[in-house]
Amino acid sequence: MLGSIFTPKKSLYPPEKTFLKLLRHILGFIPRNRELYQLALVHKSISFNIFKNLSINNERLEYLGDAILDAIVAEHLFNRFPDKDEGFLTQMRSKIVNRENLNHIAIKLGIPNIIKSKLNSENHKSIYGDALEALIGALYLDKGFKITRNIVLERIIQNHINLSKLQDTESDFKSRIIEWGQKNKKDVSFTNFEEQNDNNTVFISHLVIVDEIIGRGVGSSKKEAEQNAAKQALKFIEE
Amino acid sequence: MLGSIFTPKKSLYPPEKTFLKLLRHILGFIPRNRELYQLALVHKSISFNIFKNLSINNERLEYLGDAILDAIVAEHLFNRFPDKDEGFLTQMRSKIVNRENLNHIAIKLGIPNIIKSKLNSENHKSIYGDALEALIGALYLDKGFKITRNIVLERIIQNHINLSKLQDTESDFKSRIIEWGQKNKKDVSFTNFEEQNDNNTVFISHLVIVDEIIGRGVGSSKKEAEQNAAKQALKFIEE
Repeated sequence: MLGSIFTPKKSLYPPEKTFLKLLRHILGFIPRNRELYQLALVHKSISFNIFKNLSINNERLEYLGDAILDAIVAEHLFNRFPDKDEGFLTQMRSKIVNRENLNHIAIKLGIPNIIKSKLNSENHKSIYGDALEALIGALYLDKGFKITRNIVLERIIQNHINLSKLQDTESDFKSRIIEWGQKNKKDVSFTNFEEQNDNNTVFISHLVIVDEIIGRGVGSSKKEAEQNAAKQALKFIEE
Repeated sequence: MLGSIFTPKKSLYPPEKTFLKLLRHILGFIPRNRELYQLALVHKSISFNIFKNLSINNERLEYLGDAILDAIVAEHLFNRFPDKDEGFLTQMRSKIVNRENLNHIAIKLGIPNIIKSKLNSENHKSIYGDALEALIGALYLDKGFKITRNIVLERIIQNHINLSKLQDTESDFKSRIIEWGQKNKKDVSFTNFEEQNDNNTVFISHLVIVDEIIGRGVGSSKKEAEQNAAKQALKFIEE
């Protein structure tokens, strides 16, 4: 849509051959309408303004692709785990679509070779995951939901994600924040409380990094409250 | 899927006539496979256990419908506002799919008349929005993405959401948290800082309720940092 109205300068594009080769590797086909896919690889560091408020880069496509990917993964897990509750499904989904995992998949797919960015990408790996989401957005606009779902499931999820392994890893929010603390040499601890609420016990957890409360969570168990506190803290840290 | 394997007891269902009438009002047709839609209206307060870890209620369908609704709304806004950036689109989407707005739409659609719940729903309006999401999940499983998208856009978004009005309202996160403070008689204030980071100024905002920091946000402007802090605080409060 956007790509066909506002065509970025040719010089922004990666070399045509590399671009098409990688695109076939990622999608399994070479699309006719390439402008959208090219736009998906334009990081905002090299965007240019068309109107006062609109820059031409992959951020709108990333916004769209993020939502489409979430829906595809949500349905896939719903079908794959018919006997699991929505708490499990939500946690599995966040393990799959978290920034770190998407960056990792994007790197394996070869996106670093075709992305256009001025940033030193060593320190900004999230531009790869963002571009992968933008590519999914472009694919959706080009081919619709069904084809996008099939490609994402067959070429991304099934090739790069081991659901059984992911299921077993205790790499939930709590483990992730504790790993972060170890890596960054900061003390991470939880302070937990119980409160009575409408005849139910509600658990409250505060996640403390050094001496500051960085995350708060509530839940019907201590474990759930800690997970929620850790989730909030991760959001703050990863922003 | 689930509905066809584990059929809840007949007594859980709303009266057949009311149920079908409302379903036609909401969806525009009477579905053949009604079990899924019936399940979408079973709140967890009346769920029963089949396995140790799996209760029969609408929570799995809500998880699915939530993701499908997000994708539909994301694409609709993407097309409707071709000259707006992803920040605007994200904010508009959250105005549409926030709990309060979904509850409001669900009530207007008549969902309170057909939901099955033991809760005093005056204090738990979110069960209506949750059931609406679960219905969207059921519709998606029954009819696929394209038909679900058309029904959601034509019967829910276009009938119940005024995009121009929503666009004008300054009811973003900051306003919502301030309104919450007024309603609940708690002092809400922001403490803002600036930090130098890679030659850029980064703004940091702490949202303080009474004397506690409940939300933190960063951004490239004071306004953006405050929005992010308010967003985090709302998540904590609304959980």
